[in-house]
Amino acid sequence: MSTKHQEIPDIIVARLPRYLRALSVLREKAETTNSKELGAFLGYSAAQIRKDLSQFGEFGKQGTGYNIDFLTEQINSILNIDREWKMVLVGCGNIGHAILNYSGFMASGFQVIAAVDSDNDLIGKKINEQITIQSIDDIEQIISENRISIAMLTVPANVAQEIAEKLVKFGIKGILTYAPVILSLPVNIRVEYIDPVISLQHITYYLD
Amino acid sequence: MSTKHQEIPDIIVARLPRYLRALSVLREKAETTNSKELGAFLGYSAAQIRKDLSQFGEFGKQGTGYNIDFLTEQINSILNIDREWKMVLVGCGNIGHAILNYSGFMASGFQVIAAVDSDNDLIGKKINEQITIQSIDDIEQIISENRISIAMLTVPANVAQEIAEKLVKFGIKGILTYAPVILSLPVNIRVEYIDPVISLQHITYYLD
Repeated sequence: MSTKHQEIPDIIVARLPRYLRALSVLREKAETTNSKELGAFLGYSAAQIRKDLSQFGEFGKQGTGYNIDFLTEQINSILNIDREWKMVLVGCGNIGHAILNYSGFMASGFQVIAAVDSDNDLIGKKINEQITIQSIDDIEQIISENRISIAMLTVPANVAQEIAEKLVKFGIKGILTYAPVILSLPVNIRVEYIDPVISLQHITYYLD
Repeated sequence: MSTKHQEIPDIIVARLPRYLRALSVLREKAETTNSKELGAFLGYSAAQIRKDLSQFGEFGKQGTGYNIDFLTEQINSILNIDREWKMVLVGCGNIGHAILNYSGFMASGFQVIAAVDSDNDLIGKKINEQITIQSIDDIEQIISENRISIAMLTVPANVAQEIAEKLVKFGIKGILTYAPVILSLPVNIRVEYIDPVISLQHITYYLD
């Protein structure tokens, strides 16, 4: 884990990718923005935006707001997405297929360069022009040869923990998991959960 | 929007579904838990757990911890998931199919009862035993006849805003969207985003 921003609360870090999304839309119409506009776009207060961004340095000027390209560049650097990240997809069912055909990764500097499964009926199948499904038994070699540090985990819930432990053993540092179980892994491993039920339960709180 | 907990920060609300996940696992082995155990499970401090739960009332006793069934029941009630929620799936591509075949919803009280698409090749196809894909032109009728308040949006990015506005017009109050665009909707509409790129950008911050 980096030490450079260690003191910044994770909740603020979590908002930065959304800032990027907002900035890319606002950039279509202007070169500058301000905390009020950004806040309105994202549903946060202007004060929240200023407070968040002040954690990382001085990005705006009183009265003139933020230069969108500059702010985008700075946030890209903070999030370490000013480079390419190679990923391996573990599990090639419906969700795995949807992910491989999702064009949004490449545009963001993330690239799935290999996909594995344990199902003999899937191994050897071409998923798209670049990727042929490989055996999960080859995962160690795939990770080390390609120096992959991020895995996307789209396997059934009952095998997710076991497979995640293997991935970590073979050098994976970050896991984006779609399996609806909480993974118990060393603290230095970064796990993000994509879980529609958790999001739905968040929605219903407000739907009383 | 409910007024009963209006003062509770959304960030705490957002953690409650994760508490439920943790409690359901811990329940397999014991009847009670405590803030230290819950915190260790979720990666939060014990103090954070106590602070979060104290927002909603007194759930535990000094020294004896939390009764898991009681705490689960209370959180279910707070999140309004002590009832069934009907949903409509809008968009039946790869992600839509993955969602319809995902068994985790039913177990959580969420039920996709209808699915629509604009593709004539898909309309009329049976996705599973319960659901046949209907035309998106029938969406108003589907929502009103079934009193649906939640939609899952899995349509291409370039039509997401337009379709979301229609859904709101027809009575949808909460949207879980997989489209990689920020939706601009009235403030009383609750939107949650499932966006792997945003999660990946959150991971890479820590992978420097």
